[in-house]
Order: sequence, then C-alpha cells, then structure tokens
Amino acid sequence: MSDKAKTNPSQTRKLRDVQQWHRETDVAIVGFGGAGGCAAIEAADAGSTAIIFELASTSGGSTALSSAEIYMGGSGGTRVQQACGFQDSTEDMFTYMMMAAGPQADEEKIRNYCENSRDHFQWLLDIGVPFKDSFHRERAIMCLTDDGLLYTGNEKAYPFAQQAKPCPRGHNLYVEGDNGGPLFMKIVTENVEKRDNITVEYETRALTLIVGDDDRVVGLVVRQNQQELNVRARQGVILCAGGFVMNDEMVRKYAPMLTAGTEPIGNPGDTGSGILMGMSVGAAAINMHEGFISLPYYPPASMTNGIVINDRGQRFINEDVYHGRLGAFALRQQSDRIYFIVTVDQYADYEKVSFMGAQVAGTGESVEELEEELGLRTGTLQQTINLYNEDCANGEDTQCHKAAEWLVPLQPPLVALDITPGRGVFVPYFTLGGLDTLPTGEVVDARRQVIPGLFAAGRTACGVVRRAEGYSSGMSVGDATFSGRMAGKQVAAAARN
Amino acid sequence: MSDKAKTNPSQTRKLRDVQQWHRETDVAIVGFGGAGGCAAIEAADAGSTAIIFELASTSGGSTALSSAEIYMGGSGGTRVQQACGFQDSTEDMFTYMMMAAGPQADEEKIRNYCENSRDHFQWLLDIGVPFKDSFHRERAIMCLTDDGLLYTGNEKAYPFAQQAKPCPRGHNLYVEGDNGGPLFMKIVTENVEKRDNITVEYETRALTLIVGDDDRVVGLVVRQNQQELNVRARQGVILCAGGFVMNDEMVRKYAPMLTAGTEPIGNPGDTGSGILMGMSVGAAAINMHEGFISLPYYPPASMTNGIVINDRGQRFINEDVYHGRLGAFALRQQSDRIYFIVTVDQYADYEKVSFMGAQVAGTGESVEELEEELGLRTGTLQQTINLYNEDCANGEDTQCHKAAEWLVPLQPPLVALDITPGRGVFVPYFTLGGLDTLPTGEVVDARRQVIPGLFAAGRTACGVVRRAEGYSSGMSVGDATFSGRMAGKQVAAAARN
Repeated sequence: MSDKAKTNPSQTRKLRDVQQWHRETDVAIVGFGGAGGCAAIEAADAGSTAIIFELASTSGGSTALSSAEIYMGGSGGTRVQQACGFQDSTEDMFTYMMMAAGPQADEEKIRNYCENSRDHFQWLLDIGVPFKDSFHRERAIMCLTDDGLLYTGNEKAYPFAQQAKPCPRGHNLYVEGDNGGPLFMKIVTENVEKRDNITVEYETRALTLIVGDDDRVVGLVVRQNQQELNVRARQGVILCAGGFVMNDEMVRKYAPMLTAGTEPIGNPGDTGSGILMGMSVGAAAINMHEGFISLPYYPPASMTNGIVINDRGQRFINEDVYHGRLGAFALRQQSDRIYFIVTVDQYADYEKVSFMGAQVAGTGESVEELEEELGLRTGTLQQTINLYNEDCANGEDTQCHKAAEWLVPLQPPLVALDITPGRGVFVPYFTLGGLDTLPTGEVVDARRQVIPGLFAAGRTACGVVRRAEGYSSGMSVGDATFSGRMAGKQVAAAARN
Repeated sequence: MSDKAKTNPSQTRKLRDVQQWHRETDVAIVGFGGAGGCAAIEAADAGSTAIIFELASTSGGSTALSSAEIYMGGSGGTRVQQACGFQDSTEDMFTYMMMAAGPQADEEKIRNYCENSRDHFQWLLDIGVPFKDSFHRERAIMCLTDDGLLYTGNEKAYPFAQQAKPCPRGHNLYVEGDNGGPLFMKIVTENVEKRDNITVEYETRALTLIVGDDDRVVGLVVRQNQQELNVRARQGVILCAGGFVMNDEMVRKYAPMLTAGTEPIGNPGDTGSGILMGMSVGAAAINMHEGFISLPYYPPASMTNGIVINDRGQRFINEDVYHGRLGAFALRQQSDRIYFIVTVDQYADYEKVSFMGAQVAGTGESVEELEEELGLRTGTLQQTINLYNEDCANGEDTQCHKAAEWLVPLQPPLVALDITPGRGVFVPYFTLGGLDTLPTGEVVDARRQVIPGLFAAGRTACGVVRRAEGYSSGMSVGDATFSGRMAGKQVAAAARN
C-alpha cells in the first residue's frame, strides 16, 4: 500500500493489513469541538474509555469560534425561558424546526431534539454552563450582553409565526460580548480533563478508518509526530471532525452554488475529512449542496424598518426575517443587484455599527431621485414604496407580511445600500451537509442501514439544521452538543447489549 | 452472507467470496437504454466482448420513453444545422452549456461534449439514425413534425442570448410525432444485435459489484430466473442503469425539494441501483439534490406573449425561457400562487392544446377586475401590466428582458391560469444527480481518484446537464448517448494499455 493510499480518507485500511495496535480504547472520537467533547463525556459517564484525537493543539473546533448560543426549549420551557415569562411548547418548537428544515427535514431527528431539549439544558447546567435568567429584547444576530435568552431566528416572522407560536430559544452563556464559544469549550474541556477514562491526544490527524472483513468499523489510523498509529476502538468510532467548508475541492464538487460572492467561515480543520472517512465505508452523505448564507443587515434593529428590493424595484421577502433567510432568498432572485432601502436616520444608526460593510449605492431627496440614481425603471421603486407606506399606515404588510412592529413609512431622504453578494458586503457561508445518521448518531448508508461501529455528530453529520432559509442562531451549537451526547450514549449502550 | 446482504446494491461482494464465474466478458454493461446501447457498440467496435444486462424484457430505458431530441452542434454546425443556414460555433455552444450548468458545471466534461458534438452527430448517422435537413420554426417543447432541427432551450432568451450567439441545437429524428425515442432505440438495438461480440441478457437484475482485495471492480452479481450469477468483467463494468427518480426513499433523502406538487417521470427501472452500486465502492454521487422541474406552458407558442406573476402581482422571469427554467424560478418565489396571465385570444389557442392542465383562476374585463378576482393587492397587477404594456410599445422589456418578438401588449379581457405546482397543473420532475465521472466515463471518488474497473454513463452519472434552470430538450439523450460512447471507448482502450 502506497503512502498516498494510506493517507487518503476516502479509502479504508483493512483489518487484515493491521500488524499492530498502537492504541486500544472503547471509543475513539475524532475532533474535540463541541460535538466531540460532549460525546466523550457521555461515553465516559456510561463507563466506556474514550480517546479524543484532535488535529489542533487545543480543544475548540468551530464551537469555540462561535458565540455559542444554544437553541433549546419545549416541554414548558427551560429554566431561563420560564424565568423570562415564556412557556415554550414542544409542539411549537417541533413545528418551527420542521418548517425551518423544509422538505429536507429529518422528522425523527427533530422530534428527538425537541423532546429532549429541556433535558439538554439541564445537562449543560450540570456540567457547569452558566445562563442568566434575563431576556434580551433587541433584535440581534448575537447577544453582546450577558443576557441568557433572545430571539435568534425567524420565530416571529412570516410564515413561521403563523404556524408556530413564537418563543425565544437562543440561550446565551452568562458572559459579556461574543465570548460564549471560548467559555463553553473551556467548561467542556475541564469536564473532559477531570474524567479519568478520557484521554485527549492533540496534534493528531485522523487518516482513515479500519474495517473488518464483515465491514464493521473497528478502529482508525491516526498520524502523530509523523508516525502512523493504528487505534483499536472496541465499541466504535465517533466522527466529530466538523464540516467541509475549508475544503475547496469538496465545496466545488458538492456545494458550488454557495460560493458566489461569499466567504467561507469555520475553523481550518473543517476539511471534510470526517465526511470522507464515512463515505469510504459506504455512508451516505446528504444535503451536501446546502449551506448557511447570511446577509447580516442588523444590528441596528432599526434596519428592519427598511425594505429590500431587487433590480426590478420589487420587494421579495419580509425584512424581519433572520439574515440567513434573507441571504437565501436574495441569491434566488434573477437580479443583478439587491438593495436595502432605508431612511437617512436609519442609515445614521447603521453607519455607527457598519456591521455588514455594504456600500451606499445611491441617495435621494425623493423616491424618484433614488430610483433614477439606482438606474431602476421609472415608477417601479415609487410604486413599491407607495404600496409599502400605505401598508405601514394600515398596519399590515399585504405584500411580504413583515410584522406590524416594523412597519414605519419610508420618508425621504432615502439611502440605498448595495447588499449584492460579491459587491463589498460580507456574506459568510458554511456547509450544512454531512453523513446521514439516525437520532442515535449511528451512521447509515444510502439504504439507511446502520454501518456497524460508526457514529457521527456535529457538522460531520447532517443534523437538524438543513437550510439557510430556516436557520436560527444557536441551532448549530445546539445540534453539535446534543448530537455529540446522543452518539456518546449510544456507542456505550451498544456495547452493553 | 444473508440473502438481504446479497441483494443490497449498497454493499459489495468480495472477490474472495466468489466460488464460481457464471459469465465471463471483457465489459459488463448494466442497462440497455441509450447510454448502455451506445457503450456496447463502442466497446465492441474497439474489439472487446460485452454483455448488456437489462432488467426489462426489451431494450429502451428512459431514452425510448422520450422524444429523443439530441442536443448537438459546434464546429461550424452539423449537416442539419448547416443545411438550415446555421453556422454553430463550439465556443457559443460551450458558453451556453456552461451558463446552463451554472456553478455546478463540469467544465472539462462540457468542453469535451462540445468539441466532439459534430463527430457525435456523424457517429449517429453512421449507425443509421435519420435526420431531415429542415428547421422547425415554432417554439415547441418537442417537435411533433419530422423536422430535423429546432430551438429546444433558453438559447434565444435572456441572459443566455446576451452571452452566446443563439443557435438551434435540438436534433429531432426523421419521424412523425413523438416517436423519436422508440425509433432511436430500435436503431441502437439493431446495431447491438448485429455485432457478434455483444450479448444481451434481458430480465436480469444487477445486484451488486464484485471487488478485489485491491478495491478494483472485477465484475458484478446479477439475478436471472431467481438464480444469482457471478459475472467476471475483465476490462470493466459500465453502469448505465438510469437515475433514481422512481426510488422514493432516495428522492426523500437526496432531493426532497423536487417533490412539492410535482410528479416523477422516468422508467420503472430508475431506482438508483446503479448509483448505489457505485457508492458502495466509494464513488462520489454529486448534484444529488438537483432535478429537472418543468411548468410546460407552451405550445401554443403564443402563450409566450403572456406574463407570469407571483402573488404580489410581480413578474420575476422573462417568459420566453424554456419551461424548465420557468419551473425552477417559480419554485423559488416566496409566493402561495403562480399565475400565467394571457389575453382571451391567447387562452383560446391554449385551450385547444391544453397541454398543461392548468385551471382558470380568474378572468377580467379589466385589469382591475382580474386583480380583484385573484385577491391581489389593489394596484399591483395594474402597475405590472402598465409597465409591461409600455415596454411592449417601446419594444424593450426593461424588467425581465423577454425578447422583443414576444412583446405584445396585454389588452383585456384577460385570463389568469393557476400554474402553482400542486394545484392541478402537471409539473413533471426527474433527477439530475449521479456518480461523478471523468469525461472518459471513469468513475471517481470524493477525492476525484479513479475507481479502477468502474465506469458510468447516462443518468447514472452526473453528466453535462446539471440544473432545471439551464436545461434544454435534447441534453439528456445527447448526454446519455455521448457519455455511453465515451465509456465504451475508454473501457476498451484501458484494456489495450
């Protein structure tokens, strides 16, 4: 076997070619981000030994880079929800998450997530994650205060609010600024370190899976200090190696439509290696074309009073949606440009924050003047704003169903921001596809048959989050931590049976 | 090994478990549609022996169910193009097909297709496929006359015409009505039957691939008369087993977004078995979420004079696009309804054909009346039609760029057809994802490394056609026949090296 073949995660190593085991453990976990850490804790607490192999020299993964909001609720509400006066229902949460995932929804997985979400909150408390019992009222992408709860998605926006009673489910760690991720991973890492039956090996790259003649996954090959080590995993391997957003070749192959005018966000280890290892043993990778794409036009929340138009001067979305949903619909327009139209006052607020980096495309003392400056067909923007302002006066957005609280007439002078992806505005993306798994974390093939010995969690799996248009902040870390726990429990439980 | 495992195409059989070869051949081909037939002819003509295994009791596949237009051109034009006065260029064809495939384009594959397209036409002539040197002027989805050439896509529509000089490339067989497919497969079948080194075994189901210890594909297992037969394929296996549109489970997993209000079209053998067999040996399946979705609103061509609107009364697409592109953009609207607005005269023409099955949603002696009947916000449809009629008078569609030839003012009385998918209108779909292959037909894994001994063609592979929004009639049979030939040549050539 050539060196090249050895290090190709899309090819496996055969058990019969293994001369020697360099490590033996019950559970081998690839990646020490939120998913891998939670998987290790659960496996260890169920009595298994676990080794986490982490490419970097510290724990963290993409979870540590995030603000680590965690999407939780249902069952009458978490402690924070209840303290803030919200009685969340599992059915509302389920309905909302099913709508969010759309036709790609994995109903069984979403059901399991919602029914066990309040327990997940409790588990996080038990390992020491702090949440303050306070509600952050302002519309925000992430909470820059230490408040414990906020709306982080489309819960209050059309068409979600019409189907599921809105409830805030973004749980923010009790820490100032966007330091939720580092704090969260610090707590998880401390929990890992204090468990004698977990070992962590840093600066170690997982190369490929080892499979028996019966196609069972029995271990993996890792590289450490330029040595290849064969790791025996008696109970199973859990892949928690992140997504593939940093693998240009995989993005070009599976999700090229995400890359027009956008920039990848993630950690350097998001190379898809976990997904490739799974595919090498016949696992189905699903939803590989989908990603989160964001046009972050708030804060300030007052921007929500503006309108978004295409180059026909038409509105196409209720502007009180989450920025991921706006991004998804903006990319679907047959339109050379997407503009955000606001009043001068709203723009003054925006300029202070200038979160998005959008350039001013035009200004106008009147709508006609702005229309002309943007090169729009005469009458189009005038008609759009006339209708919008009438709707504002009547308190009902008849065209796009923006909630009444955001309906303030647009009075000139007006400013148009160019929010076309690729025209200066920062449009981050990351991938949402991964290995198909059961709610237990067991990896399945294209026929949904379980691949013995193989588990996946976090972004290496395709979780409850399936589309930008239904994304809420907190769903990723929520899914990573919850799915990590499920896999950790299952791998240990399977051993007992 | 259990019976279940034996018949699961997502699992392989190991060479070491093969006790006996029941068939031996140079090339084993799965499926006798357009791709499989052409692959067999090329392999045989290069000196190899070939066996085609076909599930049905006759040849045909989806090619025989189609009208078998074939998308060809470039290199100054095919004989038919030249005779009809069109000098097609390879660069225009390449540019058009690259735009059609969009970010998902496989540039190398499209380049190869375009550069060899005129040769492909000649090859088809050589095996006896007849084309008449006549041009069909009317806009049509398929040619119901025996004319040899017509526009079958978005070539003359924005934004394609602005980038690539339009040229008709849909080649229609010299036969009346929609009998191109049966005639084409009759000719291919005769060519197969007259070659001594090709054998066809009908009513035979391919079950799974056989792989050696070096992961090379060395044959396959088929079932015939309730017997499992091991087939040795010395030079390789070519999978030409169609797509997966008839496999509900795979569609739900990979392309659930195609199924809202749509109906699958294809042949019963499109169960994805070829794709699953490829995945079982580590092949990458790509573009699995994509499909062709059509809202066939013409003929009559006069419908193109109408406009399409969403439930905000907005136009969103130039109505002279191919119906697949209209379908793709219709599904992307945040809109409960999609309407086609035509004059009573245009509707009278449509009613005679009634191709689409759309229901009348409203009529109006005036635009205001129709607007009200459709429940649209007052003023919206009026504004849209006012702008449109002004543009018609000026000969330029400033909003959606429909070509000038279709710009005729909409004068009441007007009719609105409900073309919302799921509301009575027939919206067929089929899948466009499949195994990733090189232009040679060699199947590759997720790292684009060739899987030795495995080839794919037709819809089992992901070919040059990647999106509904860029589909032209004739691309599917064009790709099936061309990619089949490429694979047949390569499998034989590889043996000689």
